[in-house]
Amino acid sequence: MVGTEGLDFAKLDGLVTVVVQDAQTREVLMVAFANEEAVRMTLEEGRAYFWSRSRRRLWRKGEESGNEMEVLKVMVDCDGDALLYVVRPKGPACHTGNRSCFFRELELRPSGNP
Amino acid sequence: MVGTEGLDFAKLDGLVTVVVQDAQTREVLMVAFANEEAVRMTLEEGRAYFWSRSRRRLWRKGEESGNEMEVLKVMVDCDGDALLYVVRPKGPACHTGNRSCFFRELELRPSGNP
Repeated sequence: MVGTEGLDFAKLDGLVTVVVQDAQTREVLMVAFANEEAVRMTLEEGRAYFWSRSRRRLWRKGEESGNEMEVLKVMVDCDGDALLYVVRPKGPACHTGNRSCFFRELELRPSGNP
Repeated sequence: MVGTEGLDFAKLDGLVTVVVQDAQTREVLMVAFANEEAVRMTLEEGRAYFWSRSRRRLWRKGEESGNEMEVLKVMVDCDGDALLYVVRPKGPACHTGNRSCFFRELELRPSGNP
């Protein structure tokens, strides 16, 4: 697919969900959102751009921390409302300094059900 | 972490984003959303539950297709608004029959920028 034409930005008020995965370790690093401009910039520059819902602006990962992400591949899901950025990160993805934002585990309590 | 207490359902109108990853292949299979009940059911049963925004109801992955997902681990991200279900899928995650919903690639056009 070329460009952002097949993407569905309508379901999330102009955004798509973005999952970021480390190309080498295959670890899921973070989840964020992107508007059309962020996707276009990512495709053009091969660096990860997102839309910050709290700050209401475009941001390039690493613009402050220096921990940029080189984007090697962008995959789209079946209904066009989520993207997967496969990246080579220059540092921790998480603002806490953890490599991945998913560093806490919830306790599973299977009750005997399969 | 125990239960759903640390989760932030406010940012997405009562939902958190859920990324589903294959425990064995580490492939990202799909992205969906969960309300508090879906997370609780997932933790209790060790099977993947979500909230369908289009049908406005709780759904268990595989309830129609039979392609259930056994949930081996649930991770939470740093700000508590996204989860990672690490699963053992019983069949394709995607309704198209693809193993992952992310089976299409967008064309990267790096313009010489790093």
